[in-house]
Amino acid sequence: MVDTAERVPSATPASTSATGKAPATTPAPATAPAVTPRVDVEALGRQLLGDWAEARLASRELSRRPEMQKEEGLSVADHRRRVFGQLKLLVENGQVHRAFPKSLGGSEDNGGNIAAFEELVAADPSLQIKSGVQWGLFGAAVLHLGTEPHHEKYLPAIMSLEVPGAFAMTETGHGSDVASIATTATYDPETQEFVIDTPFRGAWKDYLGNAAVDATAAVVFAQLITKNVNHGVHAFYVPIRDANGDFLPGIGGEDDGQKGGLNGIDNGRLHFDGVRVPRTDLLNKYGDVAEDGTYTSPIQSPGRRFFTMLGTLVQGRVSLDGSATIGAKIGLKIALTYADQRRQFTAGSDTDEEVLLDYQRHQRRLLPLLATTYAASFAHEVFLHKFDDVFSGTADTDTDRQDLETMAAALKPLSTWHALDTLQEAREACGGSGFLTENRLTSLRQDLDIWVTFEGDNNVLLQLVAKRLLTDYSRKFAKADAGALARYVVTQAAGKAYHGSGLRTVAQTVRDFGSTARSVNWLQEPATQRELLTGRVETMIAQIAGRLRPASKLGKKAAAELFNSQQNELIEAARAHGELLQWEAFTDALEQAPDAGTKQVLTWLRDLFGFGLIEKHLAWYLMNGRLSPQRAQAVSAYIDRLLTRIRPHAVDLVDAFGYDDQLVRAKIASGAEAERQAEARAYYAERRAAGTLPTPEKSQKKR
Amino acid sequence: MVDTAERVPSATPASTSATGKAPATTPAPATAPAVTPRVDVEALGRQLLGDWAEARLASRELSRRPEMQKEEGLSVADHRRRVFGQLKLLVENGQVHRAFPKSLGGSEDNGGNIAAFEELVAADPSLQIKSGVQWGLFGAAVLHLGTEPHHEKYLPAIMSLEVPGAFAMTETGHGSDVASIATTATYDPETQEFVIDTPFRGAWKDYLGNAAVDATAAVVFAQLITKNVNHGVHAFYVPIRDANGDFLPGIGGEDDGQKGGLNGIDNGRLHFDGVRVPRTDLLNKYGDVAEDGTYTSPIQSPGRRFFTMLGTLVQGRVSLDGSATIGAKIGLKIALTYADQRRQFTAGSDTDEEVLLDYQRHQRRLLPLLATTYAASFAHEVFLHKFDDVFSGTADTDTDRQDLETMAAALKPLSTWHALDTLQEAREACGGSGFLTENRLTSLRQDLDIWVTFEGDNNVLLQLVAKRLLTDYSRKFAKADAGALARYVVTQAAGKAYHGSGLRTVAQTVRDFGSTARSVNWLQEPATQRELLTGRVETMIAQIAGRLRPASKLGKKAAAELFNSQQNELIEAARAHGELLQWEAFTDALEQAPDAGTKQVLTWLRDLFGFGLIEKHLAWYLMNGRLSPQRAQAVSAYIDRLLTRIRPHAVDLVDAFGYDDQLVRAKIASGAEAERQAEARAYYAERRAAGTLPTPEKSQKKR
Repeated sequence: MVDTAERVPSATPASTSATGKAPATTPAPATAPAVTPRVDVEALGRQLLGDWAEARLASRELSRRPEMQKEEGLSVADHRRRVFGQLKLLVENGQVHRAFPKSLGGSEDNGGNIAAFEELVAADPSLQIKSGVQWGLFGAAVLHLGTEPHHEKYLPAIMSLEVPGAFAMTETGHGSDVASIATTATYDPETQEFVIDTPFRGAWKDYLGNAAVDATAAVVFAQLITKNVNHGVHAFYVPIRDANGDFLPGIGGEDDGQKGGLNGIDNGRLHFDGVRVPRTDLLNKYGDVAEDGTYTSPIQSPGRRFFTMLGTLVQGRVSLDGSATIGAKIGLKIALTYADQRRQFTAGSDTDEEVLLDYQRHQRRLLPLLATTYAASFAHEVFLHKFDDVFSGTADTDTDRQDLETMAAALKPLSTWHALDTLQEAREACGGSGFLTENRLTSLRQDLDIWVTFEGDNNVLLQLVAKRLLTDYSRKFAKADAGALARYVVTQAAGKAYHGSGLRTVAQTVRDFGSTARSVNWLQEPATQRELLTGRVETMIAQIAGRLRPASKLGKKAAAELFNSQQNELIEAARAHGELLQWEAFTDALEQAPDAGTKQVLTWLRDLFGFGLIEKHLAWYLMNGRLSPQRAQAVSAYIDRLLTRIRPHAVDLVDAFGYDDQLVRAKIASGAEAERQAEARAYYAERRAAGTLPTPEKSQKKR
Repeated sequence: MVDTAERVPSATPASTSATGKAPATTPAPATAPAVTPRVDVEALGRQLLGDWAEARLASRELSRRPEMQKEEGLSVADHRRRVFGQLKLLVENGQVHRAFPKSLGGSEDNGGNIAAFEELVAADPSLQIKSGVQWGLFGAAVLHLGTEPHHEKYLPAIMSLEVPGAFAMTETGHGSDVASIATTATYDPETQEFVIDTPFRGAWKDYLGNAAVDATAAVVFAQLITKNVNHGVHAFYVPIRDANGDFLPGIGGEDDGQKGGLNGIDNGRLHFDGVRVPRTDLLNKYGDVAEDGTYTSPIQSPGRRFFTMLGTLVQGRVSLDGSATIGAKIGLKIALTYADQRRQFTAGSDTDEEVLLDYQRHQRRLLPLLATTYAASFAHEVFLHKFDDVFSGTADTDTDRQDLETMAAALKPLSTWHALDTLQEAREACGGSGFLTENRLTSLRQDLDIWVTFEGDNNVLLQLVAKRLLTDYSRKFAKADAGALARYVVTQAAGKAYHGSGLRTVAQTVRDFGSTARSVNWLQEPATQRELLTGRVETMIAQIAGRLRPASKLGKKAAAELFNSQQNELIEAARAHGELLQWEAFTDALEQAPDAGTKQVLTWLRDLFGFGLIEKHLAWYLMNGRLSPQRAQAVSAYIDRLLTRIRPHAVDLVDAFGYDDQLVRAKIASGAEAERQAEARAYYAERRAAGTLPTPEKSQKKR
């Protein structure tokens, strides 16, 4: 850092000096660093690719093939047909078997499988999600909930797409509340079969990819009932259609029809009326029924059993976190490329119009989203490692699995909402052009819309995070009284806490916030940012825990009301926890930056992310005495300064994402705008030089 | 108000008592008012319909006809054909002539025309906007920019749709910067013709409704050049296609193709190469060219002339403000109806699941949007009156027109962004169901997306507002020094300021913010809310003006940079101004409430809106010493209490919007969910009563 200590002047110029890559009109530096750093785009690109770079690059290569890409404007039926054909191409290209057992031709590479899957979003989100239904849900359920005989019997045909299948978990009446699904599988010891029923309309399976047309089988989740005891949700392998595509006896369904996006996937409903499947088609890894109807399970607690079973399916959340972030990357690549070429309105000149990205507002709209995208990207890499460690068995204790679940529940909501916000802001920042389908932004946003409510509704997931944070907290203070809560002092070191992903804490000292000087300097310190972000999570959780303390003495209804009164705050605390995870990942990633210049720019970007979080929650910091009004004012002022520093590097920072024209496929980001601007400027320059430009009436009157 | 003074308890129950309409499970009141007010839905509905109720109701009646409604899933070509057919139905039903001269069969009813137009959004936003292109832009340009001979010659065929037309203003290279368009119309005295050219690719007209297929003529905006002087932007009537639908010589175009929404409209591009039109086809109300090429205008200043011409087209912004708010109303009608029926997760009971809307988070997500929708609706009625006064000539001084422009530039951005936010939150609040096209939310949101950047990009419009506020401010202090700025004391009374729509001010006294008691009580006072909201606008503008003061001594480039450094803050100040306009309109509307009970509920809703604004900007109030941390904390706590008060009335409040099933057309808001829930509950109740429900494993173990 070069300029830090002085107060931010109110008249900060719009842009600091340009690198060689910045547009020629960028104003000269006023208070810029002595040496402007350069971003090594290629090296930063390699860092962003992460440890499963090969799988990502292979998937991108496939996504560049026109036959794998979304064709806009198809009817729902045609889009579905196209995507089903693309799934076959994935099989032919060996792109779908990475996670499956080596004995069946897979490579047991969990991290690589997810990385490759995520990148398919650039081809067509429908293709991506439909492949996720087939191999990541339907196939993965057989793999993770079934046992050896199921693997041998069913996986080969699933892997080859010979048997397209549905993952029949969600019901019309129970979305995120899987434990309450109403479908039953009742064991009949006489025939040694399970009888599957959806006893009322709300129990119908709904929103299932593959169910409307393609699926010939399904993994059906149902309450397992034997000897008149309900053992909770279990999964069953159930054939649903015959070779002609007609439903088997007792099975029916409906087409969910057109959706707000992802129309290449045939979502539909299924209902079951006395459908019988052999006892052995219970996917019996976590619970089995003997011939006589006796139930056994390696996990005694029904609650833990349920969460263990669901936990094997966490990869959906992992991959959505990653692919949502790719969606944001593509959106920013389009909007920032355009903003760096497009000119609109004259300001500092009579003849030259300003480049959009030189406007402060335009920087304010897009660059914080860029910072968040980097944070989400680095956090995802940490998350993917955690996932791979658990699923490869490298580190798969109960605590590891719980940490993974918590991380999934914290990060997936943040990144999926971020993707929608980013694609929308990108669309608006491109004006009318952004609305044209040829420029991709609306299409991507429509397809990613459902990301925020499927694989666990974001608000429901954040409540799971909050409950985990409260549990961590109450464990710490199990035997403490209210006074102990008030004396709550943080103990864990940041690094340790991070990899545990539970309640994040750092050493915190009581500071004098009344001091006036060097507010910006202080805020720039990573330790300060960490302290502010961590302190907020801790304090919110401690405050909520304090308010919830009377619950243990209340009846169920009153306790529920008390809990409900804190619901909004709980979700906000969980979000703060997720933001902290992202900030920590970004900060850790700085150490891997390829060179000093790149590191400098990334540090500004990390600061923009951190300051952005603090600005968003500024009222909280003020009300809780963590920031003085003076220091709080320095936050927004310093964000303005960071914007001008990052602006010359914005195009480099999106280029480093590695999405080229074939992957981005937006006309306005192809260089067409730069050509148009050059042509227009040449036209006027020529006529000005020749003296043939008509005189403006205004100037004429002055003469 | 009944309960006001006591501090908000931290354990506020989730819901207060229910009205007859609220679901039976709503918990009993804990600290509810002694008498729960009732909303008179029908009377409130009449209030919301406003002064052009008849036109609105007629338009809704037409919108209920299936042939006028959007058919989902059509190809772009089929949707375009359908909408063009619907335009003919509008003509047949006499729905499009209200704004035109009585001499030509119109009724010169400007307010009624806009009100009726707005309501068409419920039928199909494409139909609405395409009718807006034909009669509100193309036709209105001939009406307002042309003179008697143009009216007689062109309007009848425009009104009857015999001549479908494009409004050719926007260019690929110049979106919101209309003054800089590059199309030229050069007068040739020899032939007494204008020669129209789009000299380079960026000068092509773009995003024009009707241009891709249907338009046979266009009003083309171009720089008028005569005797080698450029007199700025003027409009010309230009035939573009022959009877076969082929372009006339010198004219070409492209189809903009598929868009993110509004695909019933054939947007396209047009280019002109030496296209000649008779001198008399200049729409010459504000500028004319004599046979010899001499230019004359009733408005001497080219700048004022330009803004006067553009000002005649303000109705686009008026109608978008109104129809965006209708979009939000329909979205909330769907989401709140569903939230009042849908159950998910048990909390306070072992058997009964909670209704979604009883969850605090769900209330927090939707009810503030409901409050804002009411504010936007009441503000729109004020705005529509202002528009009607100006266009009917009742009050059309220069100041009136400027006030109307400022109001349009302030309200259109707020309501269009609000519509998108609301439709998105509504979609998410309905989970997977919200994503299905049959439930309307995604379809509406996609169609309304472009609202935020067309008819003036929202960010550009807000800058116009800010400039007006700065001008008002600097007029007040034209001769004052910096000391006077610091001593700035507000002088205008609220009522007076409101109707002027310039800088809003109220008498403000210096208060002691250190007092501890009755924070909520104090905040509930309308005078307090007004003072806080008004003070923020004033202070922001005064602060920005102070920072911009050196600009007058700077060169053009440096001044532009200084201005740019304040751009973000300027836009925030303009937004604050618009929010204040909405708050004032809501507060004024309380006086028209049909009865005391309705007024009580509306007052809570207005408080929720006001508190929501203060909470959103809480950091600003804290940093600027307007709220003590203690009072600031009361804001969020009181919002929580307001939510529980308003919750039992939520369904009444959306029913009052008056959009019935035929206008809403969302399956999940049709009562289907209530039926499903009743069926599911009956199923379990019956089996529980009969003792045939299998025992949960968990309970079994306890035995």
